[in-house]
Amino acid sequence: MDNSKYLKTVIIDKLIENEAKEFEDVTIDEVRLNLYLNEKKTISMMCIPKDQDAHAIGYLMSENVISSYKDIEEVTISEDGLRVDVRANINEDSIQNLFKEKTLTSGCGGGVTGNVAGFLEIPFNQSAFKVKAQTILDEVKIFYKDSELYNLTGCVHKAMIYLLDGTTVTAEDIGRHNAIDKAIGKCMMQGLDTTKSVLFVSGRLSSEMVTKAVMHAIPMIVSRTAPTYLGVQTAQKHGITMIGFARGKKMNMYTHQGRIDV
Amino acid sequence: MDNSKYLKTVIIDKLIENEAKEFEDVTIDEVRLNLYLNEKKTISMMCIPKDQDAHAIGYLMSENVISSYKDIEEVTISEDGLRVDVRANINEDSIQNLFKEKTLTSGCGGGVTGNVAGFLEIPFNQSAFKVKAQTILDEVKIFYKDSELYNLTGCVHKAMIYLLDGTTVTAEDIGRHNAIDKAIGKCMMQGLDTTKSVLFVSGRLSSEMVTKAVMHAIPMIVSRTAPTYLGVQTAQKHGITMIGFARGKKMNMYTHQGRIDV
Repeated sequence: MDNSKYLKTVIIDKLIENEAKEFEDVTIDEVRLNLYLNEKKTISMMCIPKDQDAHAIGYLMSENVISSYKDIEEVTISEDGLRVDVRANINEDSIQNLFKEKTLTSGCGGGVTGNVAGFLEIPFNQSAFKVKAQTILDEVKIFYKDSELYNLTGCVHKAMIYLLDGTTVTAEDIGRHNAIDKAIGKCMMQGLDTTKSVLFVSGRLSSEMVTKAVMHAIPMIVSRTAPTYLGVQTAQKHGITMIGFARGKKMNMYTHQGRIDV
Repeated sequence: MDNSKYLKTVIIDKLIENEAKEFEDVTIDEVRLNLYLNEKKTISMMCIPKDQDAHAIGYLMSENVISSYKDIEEVTISEDGLRVDVRANINEDSIQNLFKEKTLTSGCGGGVTGNVAGFLEIPFNQSAFKVKAQTILDEVKIFYKDSELYNLTGCVHKAMIYLLDGTTVTAEDIGRHNAIDKAIGKCMMQGLDTTKSVLFVSGRLSSEMVTKAVMHAIPMIVSRTAPTYLGVQTAQKHGITMIGFARGKKMNMYTHQGRIDV
């Protein structure tokens, strides 16, 4: 994968041993991506201009503006990469809620989230899906090793969907929300079933991260870091298995541990 | 400072040496805070329910909805801590822009940001303020050592305003944006001059973090981690000194290095 086009070189002064020396440093690109839905400008997102189609699809489905991938007729990305156009059959109620109930999210890459908390009746996740604890720990290691953009810039979040057959779908972005939306969008575009999968995220598990799993019926969410209390409560309420602090040979199982084979 | 009320205990299963054992774990509280402006519900933010008044003031001033602290008549917090009411003289244009131009931010604690990019004519920061490189490195160390909520939960961001006389004003939140808004709001409430100060933030320097410094005429922004390319460009354009990767005895000076005494 050629990631070089998302990297921008800057000339900096580096302080080393009380002396400033000129260096070349690499930073990650960040743009304002404009999302048009049925020819109407809907929202902009600050993000890495990569996987814009998956990003738009994942976001709109996370917010229940689009219920099913089948409702999407066409997704096009402008030549400069700064505009993505989605033509789809949409839920007018959800899009109204999205902007009527303006909630600033706390999570990276977040922003407006309107639907889930309270508006929708979401069924409890009853998936009988099971995963070995060791598999989770192994995948966390791979997850961090394989992040090229992170390794180059120290400035990205990553999301990974681990599927039943052991294959994975990953995405990176400056924001956690964006990375999750992109990974889910990619699964949708490839016709993959996320209802038996594990969502790995590189950041903390605040309520909105868990909500993404809830919205896509992903039964398990894993992070190397901490959840918030509302994150734990959200996972508990909706039947999501939540794992935090998965590092080395340890992990914390917060909710619905039954899906983990110790 | 008693932070215990922001901590919530949860019972978890901890996997250690291939065995699951029951443990008590501490998580950080996360709530939906509703912001009412002149008796109209304006926005909600996912955050730690602490310093709600400073949070509201900082956010509204960051977005130029309120131009000056003098324009604020009253700020009250509801008894349950979930609602903050601001009575103030506001800029109707800014509040319109805020919701017309819906931009999802990439930064933690971000969300809707509407004003800065393009709408406002912001003067170049010409502050002649200078700081010793060693002072920056010393303050970064203190910054991380003093974060009680982080140390307890591993789940918060922190912002600190370092003032000319060596005093500091700090704030913590699950979101980076929120932590910055809270720290700035606290300065406003205490009548402190932030135009000769340094903003320390615990996360990455994406464009929106830099924009907060721009909006409050804070001439310098420092982080232990990386900036994005747009972050660097924003700092360059608006005369902000940007320092990244400030760790140990090293730091990267990205823009307007003249304010750093090496």
